[in-house]
Amino acid sequence: MTCVFCAIVADDEPRSVVFEDDLTLAFMDIMPVTLGHLLIVPKEHATYLADLPEGTAEAMIRTATRCAAALRASSLRTEGINLFLADGAAAGQEVFHTHLHVLPRFRGDGFDLRIRYDPPPARRTLDAQAAEISELL
Amino acid sequence: MTCVFCAIVADDEPRSVVFEDDLTLAFMDIMPVTLGHLLIVPKEHATYLADLPEGTAEAMIRTATRCAAALRASSLRTEGINLFLADGAAAGQEVFHTHLHVLPRFRGDGFDLRIRYDPPPARRTLDAQAAEISELL
Repeated sequence: MTCVFCAIVADDEPRSVVFEDDLTLAFMDIMPVTLGHLLIVPKEHATYLADLPEGTAEAMIRTATRCAAALRASSLRTEGINLFLADGAAAGQEVFHTHLHVLPRFRGDGFDLRIRYDPPPARRTLDAQAAEISELL
Repeated sequence: MTCVFCAIVADDEPRSVVFEDDLTLAFMDIMPVTLGHLLIVPKEHATYLADLPEGTAEAMIRTATRCAAALRASSLRTEGINLFLADGAAAGQEVFHTHLHVLPRFRGDGFDLRIRYDPPPARRTLDAQAAEISELL
């Protein structure tokens, strides 16, 4: 099965490229959530965040940060930026070639987070979680 | 006015630290959107993404990627991970010390994106946007 983002990297699919360097490609999302929505992908296929070679996540956010600044300077009049990455189907990942969304934001753009807060945990609960995660680093 | 994340970095506020290195601190969010929700902040104050010194966004995603792997290995049984950053009030930024959310995801966790898609733009529109953004990089 062909990976659509690998095909875009190979220029075998239509694409509107914003930027590329050795490790990353930035291009316009064809189903923009907001005007000017970009995707940053690693050129080498990596299904999940954990599959990225050393240094590639860093290259992705460097590209995203540059693109965010350019979006703010553009005629789109971007008022804010969200960076978003979904790692795994349970997190909403739909294309299994890891990618970082750069979402220009505008008042009233219809994009929002749907959050169901539980009561805030006690500090001892947070401390226990931190201790466990820390040991697994 | 005191910055709450600067106070956390300085250990002047209660905190549950997961990880720190020269440039970043990772700690538990006190209002978790999902179980195990972490924040990654630069130790030096930076209001927006554009204010980060060279190399700091890269350090933040490196820390986030390590924390994501630890969350997946933890007893929380994380099924997916979202990385999320809000840059500017229009993007939902509420604490004006830039921060990267690491959100463990679980089926039925109540977190979702609210999206209002417009009709997909024509390729010539995407090409024009890409060309303009590219020139501003």
